[in-house]
Amino acid sequence: MKLLSPDELEAALRDIGAKRYHRLHPFHALLHGGKCTKGQVQAWALNRYYYQAMIPIKDASLIARCEDSAIRREWRSRLVDHDGEREGEGGIARWLKLTDGLGLDRDYVTSLRGLLPGTRFAVEAYVHFVREKTLLEAIASSLTELFSPVIIGERMAGMLANYDFVTRETLSYFDKRPPQAERDADFALDYVKRNAKTPEQQAQVLAALEFKCGVLWSMLDALYHAYVDPKLAPPGAFVTSDP
Amino acid sequence: MKLLSPDELEAALRDIGAKRYHRLHPFHALLHGGKCTKGQVQAWALNRYYYQAMIPIKDASLIARCEDSAIRREWRSRLVDHDGEREGEGGIARWLKLTDGLGLDRDYVTSLRGLLPGTRFAVEAYVHFVREKTLLEAIASSLTELFSPVIIGERMAGMLANYDFVTRETLSYFDKRPPQAERDADFALDYVKRNAKTPEQQAQVLAALEFKCGVLWSMLDALYHAYVDPKLAPPGAFVTSDP
Repeated sequence: MKLLSPDELEAALRDIGAKRYHRLHPFHALLHGGKCTKGQVQAWALNRYYYQAMIPIKDASLIARCEDSAIRREWRSRLVDHDGEREGEGGIARWLKLTDGLGLDRDYVTSLRGLLPGTRFAVEAYVHFVREKTLLEAIASSLTELFSPVIIGERMAGMLANYDFVTRETLSYFDKRPPQAERDADFALDYVKRNAKTPEQQAQVLAALEFKCGVLWSMLDALYHAYVDPKLAPPGAFVTSDP
Repeated sequence: MKLLSPDELEAALRDIGAKRYHRLHPFHALLHGGKCTKGQVQAWALNRYYYQAMIPIKDASLIARCEDSAIRREWRSRLVDHDGEREGEGGIARWLKLTDGLGLDRDYVTSLRGLLPGTRFAVEAYVHFVREKTLLEAIASSLTELFSPVIIGERMAGMLANYDFVTRETLSYFDKRPPQAERDADFALDYVKRNAKTPEQQAQVLAALEFKCGVLWSMLDALYHAYVDPKLAPPGAFVTSDP
């Protein structure tokens, strides 16, 4: 292993995104390409809800292990983004507008009763990673946000164009995210470029981003196996009312 | 054990404060009564710094295990209070103005090199309690704030009257705390009154407050033993320059 310059490290991170980000997953192509049934879109939104709901828990876990007030303060904005300033605001509430708009019962969604085990395990692996790895790795694992503005753009345009059951209002979650994600990704990228000072630390940073790409990827895998090519959907999972 | 009404539970909590809160500790009487040397006041501020510095980590740990967005949002205000909105703001920064004003080197304070082991263990026990006990117990352990406005009032008046090396500016931390503590304590008290629904849960809530009173008490014990009646101050701890 040789020490990369900060810019080489950034290039290596972006290369991971180009090769492993879930934008390349076949479920994403079906979703934004208008090839999903309404039930499949519902299953996606319902499962992704758990990821959204756990994000502030993940972020507070990171703050909880961070000894630097300036970093905690910066990271706190993520809590604000997801939990909002009051009831009905923030990313989780906006995600529930999406599940509402798709005709899912809100209590059913938030109960997690219909969640796929594969979603649960992937999301919980992410929270545990952030709690247990070094702060540098925890911060690096957020770097999938470098790539999210593009996927969000594709998702919004594709879903609005292709599904008559999806409205701009329903997708309000995605309106807010790109500038938040850019701000957060800029901070995290700058942090890892300045703080990964040895080849070992740089390898940890790269591995953290690969891990996180795997989390997002396996969430779409779980959906694909259960709802697109349902060889054996897990008992108890959400059942679509597609014909 | 019998089930208490919410008001009986509140009375029992207040009774714990009346009997166990560190306002009753002899070090508090010395501090606000003008009986401490400057070195002892410095030792108090230096050791208490670690408690202040760990509070947002404790609070983020609580947020990190909380599944209710509304509670997370409410609890987030504590992060704002302690870490502020920008560099130089918030409770930790105001505590460092106190240690500055007392003539302590800021790097030495924040390095924790002079910290008493007793302070470290008490503060870390608090963080671990919040991470590991039930959410109800974690919230209940914050209830010492019910009693803090009185002790802060005594401390400010007594320290300003009795020490020529203490100014109003130096004590700016304490100006801000009482309304924050009241708001936070009101929320936490209401939460435990509504959520401790069985005799077992009520016993847990009472025990959590007793535990927390023990944390604050043992921090003053450590100071008392090392700096007032220094039978054996731990090696490496802050050494006063008192004559």
